[in-house]
Amino acid sequence: MNHVIRPDFLLESAYAEQIYSSVASLPVIDYHCHLEAKEIAENKIFRSITEAWLGGDHYKWRAMRMMGIQESLITGNATDWDKFSAYAGIIPYMPGHPLYHFSHLELDRYFGITDPLSPVTAAAIYKKANEILARLPARRIIEISNVETIVTTNDPLDDLRYHKQIASDKCFSAKVLPAFRPDKAINIENAGFAAYLGRLAATTNREINTLSDVRNALGARFRFFVDHGTRAADHGLATIPFVKDYEALAEQAIRKALAGEPVSRLEADAYKTALLVYLGGLYASNDVVMELHFGCSRNTNSLMFDRLGPDSGYDIIRSETGADNIAPLLDELERRGALPKTILYSLNPADDPLIGTVIGSFQKQGVKGRVQQGSAWWFNDNLPGIRRQLRTYATQAPLDTFIGMLTDSRSFLSYPRHDYFRRILSDFLGGMVQRGEYPQENLSFLIETARNIAYNNVKEYIFGVRV
Amino acid sequence: MNHVIRPDFLLESAYAEQIYSSVASLPVIDYHCHLEAKEIAENKIFRSITEAWLGGDHYKWRAMRMMGIQESLITGNATDWDKFSAYAGIIPYMPGHPLYHFSHLELDRYFGITDPLSPVTAAAIYKKANEILARLPARRIIEISNVETIVTTNDPLDDLRYHKQIASDKCFSAKVLPAFRPDKAINIENAGFAAYLGRLAATTNREINTLSDVRNALGARFRFFVDHGTRAADHGLATIPFVKDYEALAEQAIRKALAGEPVSRLEADAYKTALLVYLGGLYASNDVVMELHFGCSRNTNSLMFDRLGPDSGYDIIRSETGADNIAPLLDELERRGALPKTILYSLNPADDPLIGTVIGSFQKQGVKGRVQQGSAWWFNDNLPGIRRQLRTYATQAPLDTFIGMLTDSRSFLSYPRHDYFRRILSDFLGGMVQRGEYPQENLSFLIETARNIAYNNVKEYIFGVRV
Amino acid sequence: MNHVIRPDFLLESAYAEQIYSSVASLPVIDYHCHLEAKEIAENKIFRSITEAWLGGDHYKWRAMRMMGIQESLITGNATDWDKFSAYAGIIPYMPGHPLYHFSHLELDRYFGITDPLSPVTAAAIYKKANEILARLPARRIIEISNVETIVTTNDPLDDLRYHKQIASDKCFSAKVLPAFRPDKAINIENAGFAAYLGRLAATTNREINTLSDVRNALGARFRFFVDHGTRAADHGLATIPFVKDYEALAEQAIRKALAGEPVSRLEADAYKTALLVYLGGLYASNDVVMELHFGCSRNTNSLMFDRLGPDSGYDIIRSETGADNIAPLLDELERRGALPKTILYSLNPADDPLIGTVIGSFQKQGVKGRVQQGSAWWFNDNLPGIRRQLRTYATQAPLDTFIGMLTDSRSFLSYPRHDYFRRILSDFLGGMVQRGEYPQENLSFLIETARNIAYNNVKEYIFGVRV
Repeated sequence: MNHVIRPDFLLESAYAEQIYSSVASLPVIDYHCHLEAKEIAENKIFRSITEAWLGGDHYKWRAMRMMGIQESLITGNATDWDKFSAYAGIIPYMPGHPLYHFSHLELDRYFGITDPLSPVTAAAIYKKANEILARLPARRIIEISNVETIVTTNDPLDDLRYHKQIASDKCFSAKVLPAFRPDKAINIENAGFAAYLGRLAATTNREINTLSDVRNALGARFRFFVDHGTRAADHGLATIPFVKDYEALAEQAIRKALAGEPVSRLEADAYKTALLVYLGGLYASNDVVMELHFGCSRNTNSLMFDRLGPDSGYDIIRSETGADNIAPLLDELERRGALPKTILYSLNPADDPLIGTVIGSFQKQGVKGRVQQGSAWWFNDNLPGIRRQLRTYATQAPLDTFIGMLTDSRSFLSYPRHDYFRRILSDFLGGMVQRGEYPQENLSFLIETARNIAYNNVKEYIFGVRV
Repeated sequence: MNHVIRPDFLLESAYAEQIYSSVASLPVIDYHCHLEAKEIAENKIFRSITEAWLGGDHYKWRAMRMMGIQESLITGNATDWDKFSAYAGIIPYMPGHPLYHFSHLELDRYFGITDPLSPVTAAAIYKKANEILARLPARRIIEISNVETIVTTNDPLDDLRYHKQIASDKCFSAKVLPAFRPDKAINIENAGFAAYLGRLAATTNREINTLSDVRNALGARFRFFVDHGTRAADHGLATIPFVKDYEALAEQAIRKALAGEPVSRLEADAYKTALLVYLGGLYASNDVVMELHFGCSRNTNSLMFDRLGPDSGYDIIRSETGADNIAPLLDELERRGALPKTILYSLNPADDPLIGTVIGSFQKQGVKGRVQQGSAWWFNDNLPGIRRQLRTYATQAPLDTFIGMLTDSRSFLSYPRHDYFRRILSDFLGGMVQRGEYPQENLSFLIETARNIAYNNVKEYIFGVRV
Repeated sequence: MNHVIRPDFLLESAYAEQIYSSVASLPVIDYHCHLEAKEIAENKIFRSITEAWLGGDHYKWRAMRMMGIQESLITGNATDWDKFSAYAGIIPYMPGHPLYHFSHLELDRYFGITDPLSPVTAAAIYKKANEILARLPARRIIEISNVETIVTTNDPLDDLRYHKQIASDKCFSAKVLPAFRPDKAINIENAGFAAYLGRLAATTNREINTLSDVRNALGARFRFFVDHGTRAADHGLATIPFVKDYEALAEQAIRKALAGEPVSRLEADAYKTALLVYLGGLYASNDVVMELHFGCSRNTNSLMFDRLGPDSGYDIIRSETGADNIAPLLDELERRGALPKTILYSLNPADDPLIGTVIGSFQKQGVKGRVQQGSAWWFNDNLPGIRRQLRTYATQAPLDTFIGMLTDSRSFLSYPRHDYFRRILSDFLGGMVQRGEYPQENLSFLIETARNIAYNNVKEYIFGVRV
């Protein structure tokens, strides 16, 4: 029998298999994703595997576009079968692409489909997957995925009604918590900034005219989030900002932005610095984890942006990421007692070695990995990218401090990425024993580290629960 | 018997060997090189292996200089034997260097020499190679290399007489086509720019005083090239330029340059943007492929430049490559309907992940891989570099879109680099099957992809011929 | 019996073992380290393994801080046992970290301890190591490490009395030579610069008011160093500076700095350029090797800097390293006949490919590897980092030109890093033979190259002694 995903998939040594066996069935804490709480609350049922796979996953869209497939089969009005068929048609031609593995892991896990997806098998797989999916609503997917906690990503204006609804539902065991992501109040250079502040003012019942007003309004929303279980905040920044004497420039920035005047790069960075310092202090005092995602240029194809809007597959890696600002920014936070637990994610892997070293400068006694490097993000979330992140992390810091994997996904079917990661992690560690780089007699420590990275660390780091 | 190049050279699995067997004998389309059409037209015979190997290959010169060899044995007046002997003397001390493999692949392929080159074997190899080379004129080398098409790199002022001569010769089957490379009209900061424009004016029988004049003159030359079979254009840029509102600044730049006044970086970038947008439109409407080579600092040793001129082994990788300008430049082209098929090559591998993502933003339905990452270029054209490029490409886009290898060479003996690439590609794909990362039962798809990358894709992408 | 460091540690092929056997017992020339000559002169005896390991090694401190260990157990007043125990407690949780290997290599080599260090074994290992260490003064460590020459790193104001004392001691065979490291006179932006120039003036018995004064004073100290056996100079630069017309700006810089006025980045870079050009000329005419270390941001945590001072584990990799200035700087030196043998070390591995190419532009006949890439430095001095540096070097230059490993260490117990490097080097070369990338029949050349890199090259390059 030919299974795409064999039991020893990615496990190249007996030690890897042994380590994997000790982490494979640990619960999943998906501490950063882009699921809609509404769909969990309403226990969404997917119309088809096409909706589940291609409804919002712009990573798949990009791959299809690269193959020259017409847009109607990607984001357009084509039938679900035609779209699925188009995707199935390119899959065999993507050796080494993470979607090749992700798609087959999902077919295997949720649908018991072990054949390779291709034009030959597309029809049968489409039929079988759809039949099963009809009986597989969102919550059932979450349950059979052994998910303990989901952290969604939410705008400060979100009323969190669905999070409340889920929390009050006794029949659903997984926790679904919101993360606080105030990008729209921070990325002052974006077109809708002033309008967003208007909505922030309305939601918080106050006027917003000054930097202090923005701080207070965001602070109010943050407290609202904390009251609803928020344990993590997230920032998406094109580049890491830092301006040493930021206050006056930040005031100037907000005044200009509200007046519709152009804001300079320096003013914008000052404004961002001011807010990160303010919010960092709030996060720190509430023991909320701060995630910094940076190094992304968004919506690079303006014609397609006009047609499809954001998050449609036109974001790319940046070269200038502001990486040299990380240390001064964290230092400023630390000096003010405002440095929370922080996870750094650059979209540009050229920053990885720098990040591997900067984290070591801002630790805190009693906290394991207080500032740390996040798992391989987005375009790096693939076999060589995950291995590279592990290798960088392991050479620069005790690997045992790492809180491990997240899906970062918009799809309910993405949980096998945790399995993918656990296999790669197990193989990474087992390979060291196999090659004599770590003594076999201390394998129990390696297993402990693997379990920490797969589950225990994130539980303690984000939720304060020592396992 | 000890062969340096064994039949299974670089093929680490049975699957790799199987895939290789299906691509090994495909014809070669060398879509980018620096051969002289004159030497093909005149069917040049090489005086010696020294002339063929060391006459113009500044990659070998660099290696010899690193070993402290005196310049007379490199570019000077030493005898052919002394020069060859000097090169043979360093070869065994270059483990892991691409020249080690390239040199032995060439000895094996063209001369049937299977012994390792070293001081011990130098004399015998020199004798045997020279005997064979005396009966191996340029065209014979091309024919036994199974070369179907050669694309040379030509200045717009080239009268292409040798390309015409070759085309009209019924006894020679390989096509030799010119690529349009207008660097001298674009790199406005270079010393000879104004003088070059004077020659451009003379050749096109017009005055050149304005930006519009430059456009028209280049356009005329481009049409001349297209009439002579041009299917590709090439640009060598230190950094990718982009200035949003370029027109007035570009006019200013050309006015200053023609007046002998200094041109600022901003003006120069505006001028380059203007010309790339204009030429991009011409390329797009003629379905001519645009290659962008960037990230190189040239002639870095000024004393040696004064002595030997350009292309003598003193070019290096740049750190600042303008990579963040790629997306805005391609977006500008796309908005104007002026984005042709485009291949991006950075000399700095730190740009590879960014390039891997930006290509996904500028695709077009009906075209496979319309914008794509070029094969590992120059200082990256080696075993780890080719593997890295394949890995980056495969994780960011369907690998099947890639048009594969080129020699980029000044030497007629470089065609085995295609074999080198095919072996590495086959090993890359076969290894996935070997390790269970791609299902063995779908090997036929992998073989199709390998054949596409080795031959079919470039034929369709550049020549519009679907195989 | 379970040894952490097995005889074939890191040697993955029989060829690797064979090559290693030919380099393992070569003497060590540690051409760059941070040992105190005083401690060698006085033949220091370490109070405990804690003092030897944790007394000054901020690399270990960083790792401990990452695990959340309290500072008192790192740099504070805790007992030696408690500190050792804390370090032993994290070691098993650092798979893949260089300290894991370094620590076990040291336990094995100096103490005959072959068990893995962990909380389980900590007490026994502490006891045994301390017993042995009591009979193992500094010089004995050096002798049993087969060290032929040590090059320490010294400030120009150092009176070198301990180097003299060691040199005159007939009972100690290892040479201990000072390297000239005038960072404090060059990094003009640092707080203590003016004060330092005051001390330089006092030491050299002259006034320092102008650029010329600085040059003359440093020149005097350099000659003093050369008289005491200096063969290498070292520069630690945040970024590589280069200003084309530097003289007037440099004068301005020194005037402002001495007057306590702020110095601009341009002025500072001009000043640095001026001094590097001046000193380069002195180095060249004395055949002294110049090492350029760059790409480091220092003392990034200001609170901890106030508490612990420099070199306490808060230095990181920089993104902006000035790499594009390397070529113009070396070209300026070359034009003035002032380019000495030069070794380039960037802390940021993203610079490695660029460095791999720039070295090829500034060679000199009769000198093997006159400008070369240094071995994997600091945060790169680990298994994947050393492999990466070898791979980059080997693809860009004849590997045989490389002068190989140094410890860069503050600890007397670090010499096994040379063994570590020799194993990795042997494995790197042996693997090529194993995989058929280099012919087995020319193994003797590979062994010659391995011996050159392990010992012969550095002896010739730095000390002018051909082996």
